[in-house]
Amino acid sequence: MSTGFFGDVTRIKYEGPESTNPLAFRHYNADEMVMGKRMEDHLRFAVAYWHSFAWEGGDPFGGRTFERPWFPADTMSLAKMKADVAFEMFQALGSPFYCFHDADVRPEGANFAENTRNLEEIVDYFARKQEATGVKLLWGTANLFSNRRYMGGAATNPDPDVFAFAAATVKTCIDATHKLGGANYVLWGGREGYETLLNTDLKREDTQLGRFLNLVVDYKHKIGFKGTILIEPKPQEPTKHQYDYDVATVYGFLKRHGLENEVKVNIEQGHAILAGHSFEHELELAQALGIFGSIDMNRNDYQSGWDTDQFPNNVPEMTLAYYAILKGGGFTTGGTNFDAKLRRQSLDPEDLLYAHIGGMDTCARALKAAAKMVEDGTIIRHVEKRYAGWDTPEAKKMLDGSHSLSDIADYVANADINPQPKSGRQEYLENIVNRYV
Amino acid sequence: MSTGFFGDVTRIKYEGPESTNPLAFRHYNADEMVMGKRMEDHLRFAVAYWHSFAWEGGDPFGGRTFERPWFPADTMSLAKMKADVAFEMFQALGSPFYCFHDADVRPEGANFAENTRNLEEIVDYFARKQEATGVKLLWGTANLFSNRRYMGGAATNPDPDVFAFAAATVKTCIDATHKLGGANYVLWGGREGYETLLNTDLKREDTQLGRFLNLVVDYKHKIGFKGTILIEPKPQEPTKHQYDYDVATVYGFLKRHGLENEVKVNIEQGHAILAGHSFEHELELAQALGIFGSIDMNRNDYQSGWDTDQFPNNVPEMTLAYYAILKGGGFTTGGTNFDAKLRRQSLDPEDLLYAHIGGMDTCARALKAAAKMVEDGTIIRHVEKRYAGWDTPEAKKMLDGSHSLSDIADYVANADINPQPKSGRQEYLENIVNRYV
Amino acid sequence: MSTGFFGDVTRIKYEGPESTNPLAFRHYNADEMVMGKRMEDHLRFAVAYWHSFAWEGGDPFGGRTFERPWFPADTMSLAKMKADVAFEMFQALGSPFYCFHDADVRPEGANFAENTRNLEEIVDYFARKQEATGVKLLWGTANLFSNRRYMGGAATNPDPDVFAFAAATVKTCIDATHKLGGANYVLWGGREGYETLLNTDLKREDTQLGRFLNLVVDYKHKIGFKGTILIEPKPQEPTKHQYDYDVATVYGFLKRHGLENEVKVNIEQGHAILAGHSFEHELELAQALGIFGSIDMNRNDYQSGWDTDQFPNNVPEMTLAYYAILKGGGFTTGGTNFDAKLRRQSLDPEDLLYAHIGGMDTCARALKAAAKMVEDGTIIRHVEKRYAGWDTPEAKKMLDGSHSLSDIADYVANADINPQPKSGRQEYLENIVNRYV
Amino acid sequence: MSTGFFGDVTRIKYEGPESTNPLAFRHYNADEMVMGKRMEDHLRFAVAYWHSFAWEGGDPFGGRTFERPWFPADTMSLAKMKADVAFEMFQALGSPFYCFHDADVRPEGANFAENTRNLEEIVDYFARKQEATGVKLLWGTANLFSNRRYMGGAATNPDPDVFAFAAATVKTCIDATHKLGGANYVLWGGREGYETLLNTDLKREDTQLGRFLNLVVDYKHKIGFKGTILIEPKPQEPTKHQYDYDVATVYGFLKRHGLENEVKVNIEQGHAILAGHSFEHELELAQALGIFGSIDMNRNDYQSGWDTDQFPNNVPEMTLAYYAILKGGGFTTGGTNFDAKLRRQSLDPEDLLYAHIGGMDTCARALKAAAKMVEDGTIIRHVEKRYAGWDTPEAKKMLDGSHSLSDIADYVANADINPQPKSGRQEYLENIVNRYV
Repeated sequence: MSTGFFGDVTRIKYEGPESTNPLAFRHYNADEMVMGKRMEDHLRFAVAYWHSFAWEGGDPFGGRTFERPWFPADTMSLAKMKADVAFEMFQALGSPFYCFHDADVRPEGANFAENTRNLEEIVDYFARKQEATGVKLLWGTANLFSNRRYMGGAATNPDPDVFAFAAATVKTCIDATHKLGGANYVLWGGREGYETLLNTDLKREDTQLGRFLNLVVDYKHKIGFKGTILIEPKPQEPTKHQYDYDVATVYGFLKRHGLENEVKVNIEQGHAILAGHSFEHELELAQALGIFGSIDMNRNDYQSGWDTDQFPNNVPEMTLAYYAILKGGGFTTGGTNFDAKLRRQSLDPEDLLYAHIGGMDTCARALKAAAKMVEDGTIIRHVEKRYAGWDTPEAKKMLDGSHSLSDIADYVANADINPQPKSGRQEYLENIVNRYV
Repeated sequence: MSTGFFGDVTRIKYEGPESTNPLAFRHYNADEMVMGKRMEDHLRFAVAYWHSFAWEGGDPFGGRTFERPWFPADTMSLAKMKADVAFEMFQALGSPFYCFHDADVRPEGANFAENTRNLEEIVDYFARKQEATGVKLLWGTANLFSNRRYMGGAATNPDPDVFAFAAATVKTCIDATHKLGGANYVLWGGREGYETLLNTDLKREDTQLGRFLNLVVDYKHKIGFKGTILIEPKPQEPTKHQYDYDVATVYGFLKRHGLENEVKVNIEQGHAILAGHSFEHELELAQALGIFGSIDMNRNDYQSGWDTDQFPNNVPEMTLAYYAILKGGGFTTGGTNFDAKLRRQSLDPEDLLYAHIGGMDTCARALKAAAKMVEDGTIIRHVEKRYAGWDTPEAKKMLDGSHSLSDIADYVANADINPQPKSGRQEYLENIVNRYV
Repeated sequence: MSTGFFGDVTRIKYEGPESTNPLAFRHYNADEMVMGKRMEDHLRFAVAYWHSFAWEGGDPFGGRTFERPWFPADTMSLAKMKADVAFEMFQALGSPFYCFHDADVRPEGANFAENTRNLEEIVDYFARKQEATGVKLLWGTANLFSNRRYMGGAATNPDPDVFAFAAATVKTCIDATHKLGGANYVLWGGREGYETLLNTDLKREDTQLGRFLNLVVDYKHKIGFKGTILIEPKPQEPTKHQYDYDVATVYGFLKRHGLENEVKVNIEQGHAILAGHSFEHELELAQALGIFGSIDMNRNDYQSGWDTDQFPNNVPEMTLAYYAILKGGGFTTGGTNFDAKLRRQSLDPEDLLYAHIGGMDTCARALKAAAKMVEDGTIIRHVEKRYAGWDTPEAKKMLDGSHSLSDIADYVANADINPQPKSGRQEYLENIVNRYV
Repeated sequence: MSTGFFGDVTRIKYEGPESTNPLAFRHYNADEMVMGKRMEDHLRFAVAYWHSFAWEGGDPFGGRTFERPWFPADTMSLAKMKADVAFEMFQALGSPFYCFHDADVRPEGANFAENTRNLEEIVDYFARKQEATGVKLLWGTANLFSNRRYMGGAATNPDPDVFAFAAATVKTCIDATHKLGGANYVLWGGREGYETLLNTDLKREDTQLGRFLNLVVDYKHKIGFKGTILIEPKPQEPTKHQYDYDVATVYGFLKRHGLENEVKVNIEQGHAILAGHSFEHELELAQALGIFGSIDMNRNDYQSGWDTDQFPNNVPEMTLAYYAILKGGGFTTGGTNFDAKLRRQSLDPEDLLYAHIGGMDTCARALKAAAKMVEDGTIIRHVEKRYAGWDTPEAKKMLDGSHSLSDIADYVANADINPQPKSGRQEYLENIVNRYV
């Protein structure tokens, strides 16, 4: 029985590129084969519970704009009504996955025990809904940033009791994720950072954070959770500086704490932009470093200096992202989570549908274009040819350690090496990309 | 015999804070003791050869504005005239150190052999000048970015011959630095990065760069060079993305290539800003990671998106930088290199003096203020107290590995831990800083 | 009778630069004469009601952190308790002025009539407090951005009823300001802008905004309000684009709607930074255009892309701001309003005091330094001399219209004019500034 | 007779979307009708002489990378060889227009007279080439920024002789543009701004700039030049602050100097981005203000803080630009000038062709998509409906001045107006755009 929240909408259908039905897919066709795999299995879409069902439409200059029947009170029964609507939307969109924080889904308790009880009750409710609908959990996570106890950090808090509370909370959230068959578990250290160095000891906080993550990894193995542990980089906001700044920073952190083979990254477009990177940079870097896990799909307004978390709509940009992902072999446990929120003026239930439909269609077009780029191979071959000089024996000696700096200097002097530059062909390659998008 | 370039200026003297003589120091007093050490030995100032003597005053929209007697031709005799003026300025300022790239000091040759001969000739000339003046070399470096052969990178070039040419060139520059008794050797990978990912293989280029740096470190040990090898982080410009993005990125790179105990960082204020960090962040992070080496002192215009390399003039900001440095024990082999250039409208020889005098005075005030902050200890004690809870046995168990995630969760549940936030006191601490500056 | 909110603190005293009492002024000494005027009369400090008493410590990732006795309910009696504490703080700080929005001070009503009644009741309460304490109103304003009715703009809303509601609300706020003897009335168009051009008609919205402002100006004259009408520029946030982008944009808007002699600007440091300008740029530009009114004093974190509204603490920067103000003759009806909020971790009542004390001391030091710069006159004379060539008859003809382009071309050709550049002396001038700060 | 610079390429042909020939158009088809007009007549493409033929591939960290046969010496005969190649490229691309600065096309003379003679000689050469090829001049301009005499500004220089030299130079450039039948004349005030306020008098410089522009407008009328005078906004770079910051700033400047009906704007994508705006914002604003003239088409790298001047390649973004232009009625005298330069690693002549082909194809796709958006009208109707409430009599009274603020307040109070927000439908509208691109 439907809640009626979305009126008579039950299932968004694929109608093809010529459709002008705003409640139909024009490009996302779950069963269509792309590079030998169903589109759904490539993209592994997930809906983010927080933005779509918990966020109220506030911003720093104004409060709630949305009116949702579950907003009036933080009770278990309204939490279940929210879940009913959420799963209706997952089904309507045909989204195979969803993601959540504990605080999105359960009423806030007076203490840890009550939080845990509330979470367990809602997890049981979700488990039944997953079974009924076939929708699965891409990842779970703990909200370690909204409650005022975390204002100075969770794992990196100067107060060890906050560390303890956070650790205990993560335990319950991994338990929940494990129980719900989640494919990954994510840690976003939204307040693991600082507001001012004047009151901060960077080294202590790094030690705390490294210990925290090791506790999590140990626990995962202990309980037999097979999902991937993911860290989500972001450079700042709400903090002045967040320790998980970007992919390169997270890599160094993992390496320092012996975790580079245990933990991967969940990369968000908006966070990449805030850190001064393109999305595809972060994706390709994570793959080069062997820590690529999953993506949070959204877009940032390029003229805004904060995380705008908009639904993606630029196909050429998304194409470069999926091209990076496909070149690296695609997702394993990861997927495409829409960590995107409605504009706060998009008040109506159908806006939730429009936004996700548009996002899914954008991703589908981008995936198809990226697949053609990979299959065609023109660009990949161009890149390989550009580095082909490294296949000569002399070049190999420089890389494999058999030549020292002096040996190389002798070689240059004796052979009078005087290399001439060759065109980088950037515009040519950009034109080739435009063949596909 | 003076070149006469600076007229009758021979030595800038300390005249104290009340002086209005624009050609005197008001705060920098080399022999004044600060925390038990001469100011000169704390600050270890160096003049950057490139900005002060090789840069012509051009920008992307216009060419040379400066008229220097050594600009008309790229000859050895004019290179020596340039050196004469340079050492006159080092002496006039009482700067104990200088820094240079090969390309700043020697005429550009037609090939590697000629470059090497030219460099060797000028190194002999410098050696005599160092002996005559007592001025020392803080660091040498190779310019691996100006010549068109490096347009696509040096160590990370797709053409192995460029790698070879760069490696050979670095060998000659380390040799030069070693011969001149340099305290450090710096690598700034200005073009070690990419313009477009479409023609780039990140993983290959990382391998090349890691190999290159290992070659350098091996060579350093082989010839017995005792100076520190330094990498200078910068996020971009001229490249779209530079691999040595910031301190955290460099740390990860060093760790990946087994170099974290061999190589340190030379941190520049302007590069920190471009990477989205405060200068003090990069300094404190490098110290926390054990890779702090030296600094390039300048400032970036906060409203400009490129590296403006201005002389520092904001004492409160510089105070936070020297506070970070002093807290970490001060410089060892490193120092304060003015990687700052005149504004291109500052045409006259005396502008070079004004700029350095202002920069040295700013640093001297900042050092004295920072020393007071350290000696007074109010802020340090505040920070220690903030983390004091971690000294309890229960807290220590969480950090030392004796407690698992489950243990912690039990502790929280059983003791009903419900931590309350405490004021971070940021404004209070900022007010305390303002007592000193 | 004190509320006890600030414990036993009743009045912050000036104790001089050597004081280490965190609850004393070290530089702000209200009666000290600067350029022939009391410091208090120069700076005309105001406390912002909203940040200090209405803001709860939330950010986009977490809610209220502060606990204030007036937060639990939005009632008239708690609004009065809030006012009691506010006026205690104004007195404790010796702040001669305060500023408020209607929504800061009165309970939110169910409709316009209730809002108006609530405001009138609180205005009566404020009037008595002003009389009792001598504290005055620098400016009043209407909050046309927090309530969800304004989510799409107030004056620029596509719905004329919102325009009407906003206009009616402004009327009540001007009435309140008039009654309380306010020196100015401010309009900050926080949501007068757009989220997407796709649903926006720029021309219509400009017409609406111009009309709205004309209505306000007409009403001011009608009721005999002698204060200045001020617009506060900001480029964005919460909107993607705000129409009052910066001083230059506001000037064009005023000119277009015939208001350039009726309305001035209230310039905020943080908003200047967000628009890509230095604070002193906006100040000097407003003075050059004849529309300088008042300032909102705060600082933005240079590494954050949103409005951080921190208390000012950098004396050299603030000196350039007050230098611009003093050169232009100082404030008339305007003043220095601390539009700055505590960091959300600064939980305690004394943090409110520390923050304002630090801000007031910073401004006092900056004012004194700026006054010395003006009195000394070195820089002003340097600038005058730089343009002295324009005093020749030939130069004047070019400016006064007596020479045409052809005349000038003939002059250049005939006299073979070939101007040579002269040093801009930026570093020299920056060093002079450092004599004063 | 061909110079052979482009090998055997003589004319780039339209081969349709399926072509994989990198030297063919896939979307730009000059004679194809779009909204009743030839594509060529809509887009009015122009090649920028400076980037394609004068720029040498340098950046702040390295010099010339390109090797062009006309680079070795600044002589008239090489200037003519350059012109031969340039016109060959205009013809090969089928570009109907080109644009130039004086300094791009003529050898630099020792003084004004020699500059003028050189320009006149090359103008005669261009005139014959225009006649022979049918290529026309979109606009001419004077380079008032590269020569060191302009380092402190041209019209805004403190030295009136520089003002005079600049004015005389502009006269010769308008004469040249007039003679060559140019459709517009552009002023880009690249150094009309400041490096530091410490040596700057904003008011004087504004007066100078206003006078300068009035001289230009008077001269235009005197000689009967019918083209449009255009100002090109840019916020900064090379200056710290440029007076023609953005469209809104230029509008205020024009209004202040009585020029708002005489001068329009040439808007560049990259400059819009640097000023914190989207390209479409600047376009729509210029149209709303009645000063839209022409565009400089390029793109800026969103992660770089300087003007990267890349060829456009993102169709959805360009679509929003052409949508703005088409809604406003399209170009009159203006056009689409590729103010875009090759990446400095794109060394080869064919890179010039690839870059322009890609740019022209991107614009052609964008134009076609924009035309469909206009013809379809879905979005335009949506916007009109959103503001439809303003058509009621009560709403009109608020706008036409018949209602005062008090009247409106009475209306709100009496009718108990309590407006409810309506969805802004941003995601829905973005999805509609994606139907067309």
